[in-house]
Amino acid sequence: MNNYADRLIESVKRKANPCVVGLDPRIDQMPNFIKKRLTDESSEDDICQAVVRFHRVILDAVAPIVPAVKPQIAFYEQYGLGGIQAFMDTIRMAKKRGLIVIVDAKRNDIASTAQAYANAFLGRTRLISTEHPIFDVDCITVSAFLGRDSLEPFVKTCVEYGKGIFVLVKTSNPGSVDLQDLRESESHRPIYTHLARMVAELAQEAIGKSGYSSIGAVVGATFPHQAKELRSLMPRSIFLVPGYGSQGGTAEDAAHCFNPDGLGAVVNASRSITYAFQNSDITEDEYARLVRTKTETMAKELTAAIHRRDGRT
Amino acid sequence: MNNYADRLIESVKRKANPCVVGLDPRIDQMPNFIKKRLTDESSEDDICQAVVRFHRVILDAVAPIVPAVKPQIAFYEQYGLGGIQAFMDTIRMAKKRGLIVIVDAKRNDIASTAQAYANAFLGRTRLISTEHPIFDVDCITVSAFLGRDSLEPFVKTCVEYGKGIFVLVKTSNPGSVDLQDLRESESHRPIYTHLARMVAELAQEAIGKSGYSSIGAVVGATFPHQAKELRSLMPRSIFLVPGYGSQGGTAEDAAHCFNPDGLGAVVNASRSITYAFQNSDITEDEYARLVRTKTETMAKELTAAIHRRDGRT
Repeated sequence: MNNYADRLIESVKRKANPCVVGLDPRIDQMPNFIKKRLTDESSEDDICQAVVRFHRVILDAVAPIVPAVKPQIAFYEQYGLGGIQAFMDTIRMAKKRGLIVIVDAKRNDIASTAQAYANAFLGRTRLISTEHPIFDVDCITVSAFLGRDSLEPFVKTCVEYGKGIFVLVKTSNPGSVDLQDLRESESHRPIYTHLARMVAELAQEAIGKSGYSSIGAVVGATFPHQAKELRSLMPRSIFLVPGYGSQGGTAEDAAHCFNPDGLGAVVNASRSITYAFQNSDITEDEYARLVRTKTETMAKELTAAIHRRDGRT
Repeated sequence: MNNYADRLIESVKRKANPCVVGLDPRIDQMPNFIKKRLTDESSEDDICQAVVRFHRVILDAVAPIVPAVKPQIAFYEQYGLGGIQAFMDTIRMAKKRGLIVIVDAKRNDIASTAQAYANAFLGRTRLISTEHPIFDVDCITVSAFLGRDSLEPFVKTCVEYGKGIFVLVKTSNPGSVDLQDLRESESHRPIYTHLARMVAELAQEAIGKSGYSSIGAVVGATFPHQAKELRSLMPRSIFLVPGYGSQGGTAEDAAHCFNPDGLGAVVNASRSITYAFQNSDITEDEYARLVRTKTETMAKELTAAIHRRDGRT
């Protein structure tokens, strides 16, 4: 079982692209070539088929150029059983196309419950005497609000099955300052630096041949100064960087999340790639071409920004 | 649409019982009368049927005596599609028996994604031009790690649909000290008190005729001193109290979560009620009787502890 970080780094290098495409099914915003097949009375199966078809178009367009995709499970859950079926089908399609699948789930719970989440997404679930893979993705995002013991079942499962996690350290939304930026009284340093230290420690348990660990961190592109500091606190962790595009993060901002080797981060864009054309009657082929172009543009901007940053330092 | 807090308080009063029974499907620990119907090759549908049958026995046993049940969604997710189907069926069975359904999901995300979770669990999801209920439960637990803007879509949805949330403030696990107990440098007060203030503010938006708010808090029975302090910081919020039983919290500990009116908290027990008999060949009837007895005993202990506390103060 290969180390997750090694697989991700290898794919980023091979495709010369650190971009991740986020998959957020929002049927009411999908292009008409998808939406026109649905009505308000559509069955769970119809909903599932529509979401799967939308994602098949996107996956076919981006699979040759990006290392990974990031389904956001909230947008699947909001369609109930049909949505969960589409989630599983999307995962299968992505894996079949050689893509690494990072599920954005932000799960967190006490250790015994965290183990159930780890089983569901990364490991296996015991039925009677044997264990079965369930969603079986490469990586999920997790929150550390409940503390270190809430992360340990995930770390153990990552090591056992060659999987990964990205722990929320500094999120991309404006409200991330409310809790994450509070300063701890003894050190006078923000909470996110405490989380970073916890992640750096856990990261030691899953370092691959690439030198990177399968225990990564979520660090928003919208807070570049904090990203710089966090980069030095967690040298072995790959960063998953949200907040690029629709949320206002730029390529320059995201560049701070990369190490001097030009690696160590993957940058996600969801809405700015997949919902940039929502009010048009474009055909499936046109949509696929536009998604691919948007993704290529993002990769170029990001690569240029990393080079500019390295030129400066 | 009645206020959630009013519905919960009314049910607690009518049944004279603040106990919530946690539903955590762990097939490998279920009594033999359930497990014997499954093999390692069982289909998703068989798994679903087994979980549903197990919960039907529990729900029939406790519906006349408890106000609410708390399905922990992690344990359903670990069985994939069959598990999610069982989750939906369990919710339907619980509602049909007049029980309030509190889903323990600890969801948290940026606002646009939080809205999708709020749609899935509490509100409705827009398909083409109309909106549809999905899981449609009474209440879910949420985390506030991402800050106030990550809670607002839930609060809005609660107000619109008469639903509720319990925000994690001080969790029951040992690791809750790692982040939640760090002291903020200006106030020298723990992070959980900052969260409590945020919850108290949001609570103002959803206060019912009972005087209680549909915006509640999760406060572990395992930290009684903190519970006392938090009780005074969030006077209008109902507490969901985990950690009783298997995790070591006692009735005396949990009593600190109640207001002087003897209300304002519901106490959950999962494993200590539903998996206390896992290695036996008891019949379905015996199991139902034992689950009911365990629940009644817990209610008596809790009521006695609240009375003792009030006798002392």
